[in-house]
Amino acid sequence: MEQLSDPEPFDVVDLITRKRFAGALTRAEIDWLVDAFTRGVVAPEQMSALLMAIVIQEMEREEIRDLTAAMIASGERLSFSGLGRPAIDNHSTGGVGDKITLPLVPLMASLGVAVPQLSGRGLGHTGGTLDKLESIAGWRASLSNDEMKRMLREVGGVICAAGSGLAPADRAMYALRDVTGTVASVPLIASSIMSKKIAEGADGLVLDVKFGSGAFLPAVDDARELATTMVRLGADSGLRTVALLTDMDAPLGRAVGNANEVRESVEVLAGGGPADVVELTLALAREMLELAGKSDIDPAGALADGRAMDAWRRLVAGQGGDPDAPLPVARETETVRAAAAGVVQRVDARAVGVGAWRLGAGRARPGDPVDHAAGVEVLVRPGDRVRVGDPLFEVACDSPGRMVRGVESLAGAVELGEAVPDPRPLVADRVTAG
Amino acid sequence: MEQLSDPEPFDVVDLITRKRFAGALTRAEIDWLVDAFTRGVVAPEQMSALLMAIVIQEMEREEIRDLTAAMIASGERLSFSGLGRPAIDNHSTGGVGDKITLPLVPLMASLGVAVPQLSGRGLGHTGGTLDKLESIAGWRASLSNDEMKRMLREVGGVICAAGSGLAPADRAMYALRDVTGTVASVPLIASSIMSKKIAEGADGLVLDVKFGSGAFLPAVDDARELATTMVRLGADSGLRTVALLTDMDAPLGRAVGNANEVRESVEVLAGGGPADVVELTLALAREMLELAGKSDIDPAGALADGRAMDAWRRLVAGQGGDPDAPLPVARETETVRAAAAGVVQRVDARAVGVGAWRLGAGRARPGDPVDHAAGVEVLVRPGDRVRVGDPLFEVACDSPGRMVRGVESLAGAVELGEAVPDPRPLVADRVTAG
Repeated sequence: MEQLSDPEPFDVVDLITRKRFAGALTRAEIDWLVDAFTRGVVAPEQMSALLMAIVIQEMEREEIRDLTAAMIASGERLSFSGLGRPAIDNHSTGGVGDKITLPLVPLMASLGVAVPQLSGRGLGHTGGTLDKLESIAGWRASLSNDEMKRMLREVGGVICAAGSGLAPADRAMYALRDVTGTVASVPLIASSIMSKKIAEGADGLVLDVKFGSGAFLPAVDDARELATTMVRLGADSGLRTVALLTDMDAPLGRAVGNANEVRESVEVLAGGGPADVVELTLALAREMLELAGKSDIDPAGALADGRAMDAWRRLVAGQGGDPDAPLPVARETETVRAAAAGVVQRVDARAVGVGAWRLGAGRARPGDPVDHAAGVEVLVRPGDRVRVGDPLFEVACDSPGRMVRGVESLAGAVELGEAVPDPRPLVADRVTAG
Repeated sequence: MEQLSDPEPFDVVDLITRKRFAGALTRAEIDWLVDAFTRGVVAPEQMSALLMAIVIQEMEREEIRDLTAAMIASGERLSFSGLGRPAIDNHSTGGVGDKITLPLVPLMASLGVAVPQLSGRGLGHTGGTLDKLESIAGWRASLSNDEMKRMLREVGGVICAAGSGLAPADRAMYALRDVTGTVASVPLIASSIMSKKIAEGADGLVLDVKFGSGAFLPAVDDARELATTMVRLGADSGLRTVALLTDMDAPLGRAVGNANEVRESVEVLAGGGPADVVELTLALAREMLELAGKSDIDPAGALADGRAMDAWRRLVAGQGGDPDAPLPVARETETVRAAAAGVVQRVDARAVGVGAWRLGAGRARPGDPVDHAAGVEVLVRPGDRVRVGDPLFEVACDSPGRMVRGVESLAGAVELGEAVPDPRPLVADRVTAG
């Protein structure tokens, strides 16, 4: 019912009730909701009821576009037009052992493509990209806008904390979603990611959308819907966007944690590293090169000949880090071994993620510290044949109590069987606006 | 995901997520949720996301029973066992012009059935029962437990504000539902009403469950589900409960407001009053008499011979009110007239309710004052033949601005046609546990 004494143009209970019955909200209503939430006129409990209604009843394409626009309008917009080279960004929906941004940004920088990578903190199994890089002594995540632009100009890439100026309404909404069970929703994930990426003002965007047990949205159809939605949002805003659908049923690479993921990334930059990490780094690099108009370049060369590694050293040093400093090592290590013999059918990314998180590699609450040395080395892959007592995981952490709980979770992560499973392609599909 | 440092037995995000996917919550989980919300461990924004998930995905019978039990356990339980006569309560889900409690309580008192009527404040079209009675000079809604028992002993009935001791968790939850679009839900309405009624400790309960445009749940099937759910909850707790399904498509009686509803109630107590108000008062009285083991008594006699009126005067005076004081009268009155000729097909209770509310008879926010003199007299009923210019409504309020908006809403409330519509029975059905 309307409010007699209310000067606001809409009644929030009416709008919540409309969405509760799966109705659509207009652009003016969505603009008002986001703005009124920012002003404190729409209370957090009202917004969270609306978010739950959206999670269950979903949104139409126009509503998602309007929500994204309203979140962009809540803050500033950046531009990288004065760099003299194309600025192409990347984003991953996140997964277990996903350290691809670490080799990818210097690789692109070495090929003349600027990557303005503004990251958040992780809330999942392991730290986010920033937490991983903070394993490096001296490295700073927080840069001023001037420092960020200097990095892009002089190094050709930057990985830093997103300032509070980009889509602040999304930040406030995400904090609410995180504690109210309203994270897993295509309209909400898509508008949250794309509002920040569009406000950032890059020339192109490559998305890595995960599916499988370690992904936010495990079902491949949900991941495809998310990818399609985000690619469309990019196209609608003039941001050329391509998405790869990639498999996150098993962890990516061997290292799951923080410092150990940096170590593995450096192996890739040195021309080595696990095959799947190299494959995905190159697949994403090729998409970014194509958006930059440089599809003739083969990115594998820059990994092989040390150019990407040089860019990595400049990238780390440019933000105060020492690329030669030893990375932190945990006080305790343990080996999880096979209790039976067989062929590895599956290494469950989610169970490995929970294990790493219990070891202290991730955080339970925003603002908690992460243990940079804690983590897991995954020693087997689907198709490997193991005997009783063969090592499956190397586990590292600083606290005996955490060790016990982490090992517990990992014990069930490897599924053994008789037959050799069919290999799963890492990149399952490519989604474009066309 | 579980929280490492959390000593609580459940993770609220897990429970919200289960309900988001239409899963059921266990008794231990529901107990914890209600208790943790009361303790502030579950935040209002988390509870409102859960409530929205419940509104959309509903609850199973066991969950509704467990939620009711958890809300009862959050507070004290009363007992009226020492009165020497049966204590039978009534509750209406509320509607436009629904003043039935006013004549019903003294009628029952005059027949030897004690009615402990602990009411809330209205948030709808007009005030609640307490607001209506506060039109009477000196009348007090707030009584101590001792005063309440004295009224029941000496007068045989009481209508007073429910203390904060009964189901306080329900009170906190209702305040949240009211602002988050999560009111209209069978599990939530049923557990809210029944937790208070069961905690109250009466010997029996008669429910008036409304359907039609002026009801919370307009669809008759929803109202029937609500009635069935509440009757079952009563039976499960040993509280004998009967529900009548009654029509709230048209306003009840002529008077919609506060003071004018008291005036109309006094007419009924004097043996007169509108036929529908008398019919429903007697139908509910017969159900209460049956639960009290007094089904041989005809309640109509007590209205005709002045016994109910005597009880009314004692009831009002017992709580400080002057039954002979003149009731407040509005400064301004206006008549809404028919713009066309025809037979009244429908008087839309919802439109009349909104009109009365705009005139100031209801409140927009908890704690707002209500205008006791503001209100509407409904001058036509479905089946009446009107000519152009015939009066449809008499409207009263104290502010010219409100008058304009109230009249606007009433102008569309009467639907005219050619044929005489079929009469609708007031009591559509009776729901019992048997």
